[in-house]
Amino acid sequence: MKMIYTLFLFALLSSACCHAFVNDFCVANLKGPDGPSGYECKPPNTVTVDDFVFSGFVAGNTSGGAAVTPAFVTELPGVNGLGISAARLDIAKGGFVPVHSHTASSEILIMVKGEITAGFITPSAAYQKTLKPGDVMVFPQGLLHFQVNSGKGKATAFLAFSNPSPGVQLLDLLLFGNNLPSQLISQTTLLDYAQVKKLKAIFGGRG
Amino acid sequence: MKMIYTLFLFALLSSACCHAFVNDFCVANLKGPDGPSGYECKPPNTVTVDDFVFSGFVAGNTSGGAAVTPAFVTELPGVNGLGISAARLDIAKGGFVPVHSHTASSEILIMVKGEITAGFITPSAAYQKTLKPGDVMVFPQGLLHFQVNSGKGKATAFLAFSNPSPGVQLLDLLLFGNNLPSQLISQTTLLDYAQVKKLKAIFGGRG
Amino acid sequence: MKMIYTLFLFALLSSACCHAFVNDFCVANLKGPDGPSGYECKPPNTVTVDDFVFSGFVAGNTSGGAAVTPAFVTELPGVNGLGISAARLDIAKGGFVPVHSHTASSEILIMVKGEITAGFITPSAAYQKTLKPGDVMVFPQGLLHFQVNSGKGKATAFLAFSNPSPGVQLLDLLLFGNNLPSQLISQTTLLDYAQVKKLKAIFGGRG
Amino acid sequence: MKMIYTLFLFALLSSACCHAFVNDFCVANLKGPDGPSGYECKPPNTVTVDDFVFSGFVAGNTSGGAAVTPAFVTELPGVNGLGISAARLDIAKGGFVPVHSHTASSEILIMVKGEITAGFITPSAAYQKTLKPGDVMVFPQGLLHFQVNSGKGKATAFLAFSNPSPGVQLLDLLLFGNNLPSQLISQTTLLDYAQVKKLKAIFGGRG
Amino acid sequence: MKMIYTLFLFALLSSACCHAFVNDFCVANLKGPDGPSGYECKPPNTVTVDDFVFSGFVAGNTSGGAAVTPAFVTELPGVNGLGISAARLDIAKGGFVPVHSHTASSEILIMVKGEITAGFITPSAAYQKTLKPGDVMVFPQGLLHFQVNSGKGKATAFLAFSNPSPGVQLLDLLLFGNNLPSQLISQTTLLDYAQVKKLKAIFGGRG
Amino acid sequence: MKMIYTLFLFALLSSACCHAFVNDFCVANLKGPDGPSGYECKPPNTVTVDDFVFSGFVAGNTSGGAAVTPAFVTELPGVNGLGISAARLDIAKGGFVPVHSHTASSEILIMVKGEITAGFITPSAAYQKTLKPGDVMVFPQGLLHFQVNSGKGKATAFLAFSNPSPGVQLLDLLLFGNNLPSQLISQTTLLDYAQVKKLKAIFGGRG
Repeated sequence: MKMIYTLFLFALLSSACCHAFVNDFCVANLKGPDGPSGYECKPPNTVTVDDFVFSGFVAGNTSGGAAVTPAFVTELPGVNGLGISAARLDIAKGGFVPVHSHTASSEILIMVKGEITAGFITPSAAYQKTLKPGDVMVFPQGLLHFQVNSGKGKATAFLAFSNPSPGVQLLDLLLFGNNLPSQLISQTTLLDYAQVKKLKAIFGGRG
Repeated sequence: MKMIYTLFLFALLSSACCHAFVNDFCVANLKGPDGPSGYECKPPNTVTVDDFVFSGFVAGNTSGGAAVTPAFVTELPGVNGLGISAARLDIAKGGFVPVHSHTASSEILIMVKGEITAGFITPSAAYQKTLKPGDVMVFPQGLLHFQVNSGKGKATAFLAFSNPSPGVQLLDLLLFGNNLPSQLISQTTLLDYAQVKKLKAIFGGRG
Repeated sequence: MKMIYTLFLFALLSSACCHAFVNDFCVANLKGPDGPSGYECKPPNTVTVDDFVFSGFVAGNTSGGAAVTPAFVTELPGVNGLGISAARLDIAKGGFVPVHSHTASSEILIMVKGEITAGFITPSAAYQKTLKPGDVMVFPQGLLHFQVNSGKGKATAFLAFSNPSPGVQLLDLLLFGNNLPSQLISQTTLLDYAQVKKLKAIFGGRG
Repeated sequence: MKMIYTLFLFALLSSACCHAFVNDFCVANLKGPDGPSGYECKPPNTVTVDDFVFSGFVAGNTSGGAAVTPAFVTELPGVNGLGISAARLDIAKGGFVPVHSHTASSEILIMVKGEITAGFITPSAAYQKTLKPGDVMVFPQGLLHFQVNSGKGKATAFLAFSNPSPGVQLLDLLLFGNNLPSQLISQTTLLDYAQVKKLKAIFGGRG
Repeated sequence: MKMIYTLFLFALLSSACCHAFVNDFCVANLKGPDGPSGYECKPPNTVTVDDFVFSGFVAGNTSGGAAVTPAFVTELPGVNGLGISAARLDIAKGGFVPVHSHTASSEILIMVKGEITAGFITPSAAYQKTLKPGDVMVFPQGLLHFQVNSGKGKATAFLAFSNPSPGVQLLDLLLFGNNLPSQLISQTTLLDYAQVKKLKAIFGGRG
Repeated sequence: MKMIYTLFLFALLSSACCHAFVNDFCVANLKGPDGPSGYECKPPNTVTVDDFVFSGFVAGNTSGGAAVTPAFVTELPGVNGLGISAARLDIAKGGFVPVHSHTASSEILIMVKGEITAGFITPSAAYQKTLKPGDVMVFPQGLLHFQVNSGKGKATAFLAFSNPSPGVQLLDLLLFGNNLPSQLISQTTLLDYAQVKKLKAIFGGRG
């Protein structure tokens, strides 16, 4: 008796609940336009558990030295609007992730295997540490940082970001992969002109 | 003379004013897609005062014990993007609003009539108070809370939320209205299996 | 047996829970300094339920025409950092709340008794409505608005704000309560000098 | 050899970089709908440097006394979502910018030429200063402020805003350019009825 | 020659750089007060790399079934204000993390070893998946979720949060560890009174 | 008569106004601690108009090629918490501002005198423009950018930032002014070792 009464209560309260359902999450509609705060939400009735799961965190191809396997909003649309994403990092022996930054995202690195020497740089100091499994390191938003495999075998770590789409600003790609004149790059970086030309040839930048 | 001069000034300044008009508010286009920060804005020339007014805050049907009448973004599209909404709460004698939370919204309760015993629960303490007209109580974001009519007649309160679409996470509906196996629910809530089965039967959950 | 096991689990998990306790809410330490995002938090062990309850929402003294009784962070320290607060509005027959705005807060008005004609003004249109009990109206952030008792008796409404400390920018107090030269006020408001002098005399502004 | 290795690394890392490209900026698609956080982003491959440049900061027509030349999101779509915009202010000798506010934006004024007496008003005090080239002044969000040419010739300043679309709430336009009844305006502003009628006639408000 | 010239440039520009140094990060001063946006910053000259590194991500004591090892702001003060933190999760065979939520934080789970069946619950659907190494799952902010070791051995995962101090709201601890009357708990959760008494006895709640 | 009545109204309403005064702005107490959202607020009664005015925007010393004169929170404490600041940029003939970024701030450049060729770089394209007086350019948050005097005389511009304390990350200072081993810098930037050593000698970095 009391339960019938209660069920009726829930039916009434549900009228308040259901139209707000879409606010519990906002899975990205990757076919729609992007906006300053993320993608449009998929209609809730088209959402499945697989929008919240990404199954590709396997060892990346490290024949180039290192591999980053992202689980950003394009791979894991459920993170849209939630201020979080992840990636897997594999570095071959002797490999490294060159100096880079993320425009609007902090990063946490969780060591899983091997040894990585990582650091970030501010105008007044550089902060560097050799990390082993059991170590966690945070790289504050927007700062240049790097990760070098300083161990004797492969290294693996997981990365978390405070942005569903953190971007990756690889310094060399920025400086030497563009079509700005080499002279301009040399001037504004204070690097030797020959150095700029040499790296432009490698990174495909013209000019 | 001075006034003509001034009028001209306003014509000039208005060129700066008018294109920015849409920023004064962003009434929800409820037919458009939702996004992480809310709905698209209706074209300003289609906005009327009724987008900012909701006229349904009458006594709800409390035959189930309690009734929540929302004025969220779907009823009051003018709150879109403004971080605020409201609701009316009516509780019959002996009725109550079961334990629930709002995922991304704090709540203020303003007593109007009768007596309500309300509380919220944190991992280290529960905070409970018997409220009468003249009392206001705040329930911080994301915490479980409840409201019980502890008086001798009907009780009425108004609620305000810090989110235009605050959602309502009714604990029983979450735990016993889904299709997860009863065994799993029992295990992860530590409730007896029989208890889970009994409530699943009531709330329509299968499994 | 299983329960002992489980209790132990909770003991373990609690080590994760408890240090994060302070994050469930941040009750204002009103004796400490204010900051851009609000007041410092009171130590959690000094918090009581009364930090979340304000009991002064009784009819204000409307001998001046209207009365606003606030439940802002200074009266209700539990709202600190939560983006919400409330107030009670009483307007005598014939009374009104003059044109004003809130710098960084939207407002929702919930009618309780009597009749209020309320409106807000944007550069391209004014939005006005006569409200009766059962009506709710939203005033978007930063816009000038007013409330006039247009009924035959007292009027009462509750207000909610999207800011724990919404401020009240009463236009007359701003324009005529300061010590700026009357000539300057007249020039930059285009009001007649005599009008400015008259109102300055009333609102106590010198100059 | 090492470089081929490295190039391969970059090819691998680029798979992480490129899909995140759209997050480096979000140039407004001004033909699309607006939302609470701004306009939709233009497809990155249609973006050119001209989306980030506005070339109209020339002296405005000050025959009305003052001119504001905006570089808001509608003129400079690259500011979409970035929380910043700019404007050029020219004031003829004897001219001024009347009392106004910006709903959700602070403002910085940078003096370039001439002399401007500027101020803003809070409920408890007015802050006023005579500014010359070399001076910078900030007007906090939502407060009424004004700028008067107090010098002997033209005055020029640049303005920066903390909102890509800051709006301009000119007090006279708000109070006297609308169609609310003059009696209501008089009542809620405490201005004399004759004063209201006079200014309504000038600013085109009916009622 | 050019370099001396340039060095001088850097000396000049550094006057702009250095006072802004503190803004590159804000390491928590854990002895100072907390506020709505986090802890006060430690003086930059007292910051060391160890403020950004936590070395305790070793296997937790799972004799209770599961263990969560946090790297929140109290263990890793460098995350203060950055909107990110992490934890290590170990679950013994047959163990599980009971139903819980985080008030203002989303969560990403990265599988490392074993098999975990995880899920979260919304008012309209439950989302559940069996996860193995290589899988990543996101739990949106504020929703109830659980993790069960469904494999044949130990399971390990890493967790990332979108809040430096995410809290842990264990449902049983909330419902049965407090001092609210059992009758009230029974009423507002619809659980049988005997069930509530039984669990209160286990979780130490009085009443 | 009516006015006395009204004055009384204002006295009543002012009780709502005044305690909220501190929220109209939050001038930095530069002697207090910093926090994630800025400095503590100065007590309002100690605030003067000079907290909102900075008078140092005169031509900087460009003997080093370029000079940046900041009006950040440390020079202009009134911007605390407002999401805005400014700077003056002077560049001698032939001078330039080297490649740099701002960790959490977008930038708008307003040309005043001379000619500047400015640009910013993303992973997929570089955006460059030659700017003359009348031009405005925006540099989105966190991206590397540069400004070169490409004209025949001095160049002057004003800068606005979306952060009260935007920091300045000069690339050369970051890469070559630290004490990280030159070998590590060479490896992670792909620059020749000799190049690194040469620039380290200039920028004072050891290692």
